[in-house]
Amino acid sequence: MTLPRIGITLGDPGGIGPEIVLKAFSGNFVLPQADYILFGSSRALDEEEKTLGLSLPRGSLRAKKVAAAGTLSLREVDSPLGKIKRGAPFAENGQASFRFFEEAVAEARRGGLQGIVTAPVSKRSWALAGISWRGHTDFLSQFYPEIIMAFWSAKIKVVLLSHHVSLREALDRVRRRNLRSFFLRLHQDFERMGAAGFEYLVSGLNPHAGEEGLLGREEIEEIIPAVEEAKKMGLKITGPFPPDIVFRKALDQDDKIVIALYHDQGLIAFKLEAFDEGVNLSLGLPFARTSPDHGTAFDIAGQNAASAKSLVEAIKLAVALSPRL
Amino acid sequence: MTLPRIGITLGDPGGIGPEIVLKAFSGNFVLPQADYILFGSSRALDEEEKTLGLSLPRGSLRAKKVAAAGTLSLREVDSPLGKIKRGAPFAENGQASFRFFEEAVAEARRGGLQGIVTAPVSKRSWALAGISWRGHTDFLSQFYPEIIMAFWSAKIKVVLLSHHVSLREALDRVRRRNLRSFFLRLHQDFERMGAAGFEYLVSGLNPHAGEEGLLGREEIEEIIPAVEEAKKMGLKITGPFPPDIVFRKALDQDDKIVIALYHDQGLIAFKLEAFDEGVNLSLGLPFARTSPDHGTAFDIAGQNAASAKSLVEAIKLAVALSPRL
Repeated sequence: MTLPRIGITLGDPGGIGPEIVLKAFSGNFVLPQADYILFGSSRALDEEEKTLGLSLPRGSLRAKKVAAAGTLSLREVDSPLGKIKRGAPFAENGQASFRFFEEAVAEARRGGLQGIVTAPVSKRSWALAGISWRGHTDFLSQFYPEIIMAFWSAKIKVVLLSHHVSLREALDRVRRRNLRSFFLRLHQDFERMGAAGFEYLVSGLNPHAGEEGLLGREEIEEIIPAVEEAKKMGLKITGPFPPDIVFRKALDQDDKIVIALYHDQGLIAFKLEAFDEGVNLSLGLPFARTSPDHGTAFDIAGQNAASAKSLVEAIKLAVALSPRL
Repeated sequence: MTLPRIGITLGDPGGIGPEIVLKAFSGNFVLPQADYILFGSSRALDEEEKTLGLSLPRGSLRAKKVAAAGTLSLREVDSPLGKIKRGAPFAENGQASFRFFEEAVAEARRGGLQGIVTAPVSKRSWALAGISWRGHTDFLSQFYPEIIMAFWSAKIKVVLLSHHVSLREALDRVRRRNLRSFFLRLHQDFERMGAAGFEYLVSGLNPHAGEEGLLGREEIEEIIPAVEEAKKMGLKITGPFPPDIVFRKALDQDDKIVIALYHDQGLIAFKLEAFDEGVNLSLGLPFARTSPDHGTAFDIAGQNAASAKSLVEAIKLAVALSPRL
């Protein structure tokens, strides 16, 4: 069996990205077998190592063993980095972190990677560098307009019908046809990744899931018909459940995923239940893409205070879901 | 000092109401000093006592001491109860539980009670009895149309700008004038109850609180101006914060209350964080009104399996907030 090839992008050099990447591969975590390729810059890594007193010697990086089988190598990406400035958004860090990601995506699109794990970037650094994409997902959506955002942890798993749109616009997208195609795409994606078998719990839109039409009609007119159609197509799917109940039903249930109908319905629950260990997962791509569920944390950058836990979980999930070879 | 007079309504006799009321006053909980008046029926109490093997002898109930100072007495309310039927909605139970509540509210409106604690009723029992009110809050709103729903626990406290309306209608209520008057009423209510000093954390409406207008304009056009006006009027109020962040900011902070802009924004968070110990609180009334944050639990009625914990918390909160005498 060939090992999956997993790209790791270093993230904004002024944030905690380089620190958590080094920590993840420092030997203190058990990582799954894979060939890991780090898209980044020796300059940023060297400086971070000095700060942390961690050594991941550059010479041996090209073939570092990270598991019983598996390697870590560095893909040096051209970037304008000089002496690393930390703790705030800077144009050169924006340019560099964008380039790391862009290279990894290009490699994955060529079929050279089965998964990408992205350390955090700063939208403001990107903007300072004149990059108009508003983040990883935004950049990916030019190639994969039907990208789906999912949030993963042992405690709870959530996918979002819509993400970065106003609540008013999110409401307008709760339509039977849109829901049905979303359910199917989601299911096919998990099947393709060898992770079929989930039960989908669909949240309602209105208080008490509309209470039989008294508190809103979307459940009756849009959601229930879409769920019924998906059932007929063989999906294990239930609901709509009252939004303030559905997350409790899925807590600590490894085989259940909540389908939230708008950004905060899903993320209020997820951030309360899985703050330190959450993983961000993009679906609807021909490769797995995950990231830790936190930002650049400029306030603690360079202080050896960041936890690599969420990044390590992101790496594990990317390997688990990387399409079978 | 005169003790506050607190009405306790027995709830649906077919549910767990009588059981948790008996348990709350059985001596296993420390209750605050008050004169408690139980609005109910000896028939339901007698039968429940037999089932539970708990004795709260009827003769002595009229002046049972419940604390260093404080009494418990029964207000026998006329009702159609015969042999008690449990475990499902029944018309006579609906009629009885409605009458218990109606009497308590009438007494409070006459000034004879400073607080009411309601054990759970069944909307379906009420409907079977031909009662068109859809619950306690609905009944109270005929007298107090500006009633505010709040949810209370040691972990988190939440108030709702709107409650039992569709999400679409809830969105339409996020208006500057409406928000400002809500903030003021809320603050005045707590002041009147001797509980000023809270800091109000206002949630945004859109993902990331609108991200400077990119993901929705309500924050800029309605919410921020209303918060600024309330600040000028002396309220300790901050926000709007991203909806998936604001609840974490208030967790375990005794002096912070989150203002949620619609039902599920508040209740998704509250039900995840305070499931067993939550208390429902109505504001905007001239008396305190609380209830446990659970329903009739017909499935476990009569099995001595119900916990009185949430009811006990509801009693404590009603006494704490009962307007000073």
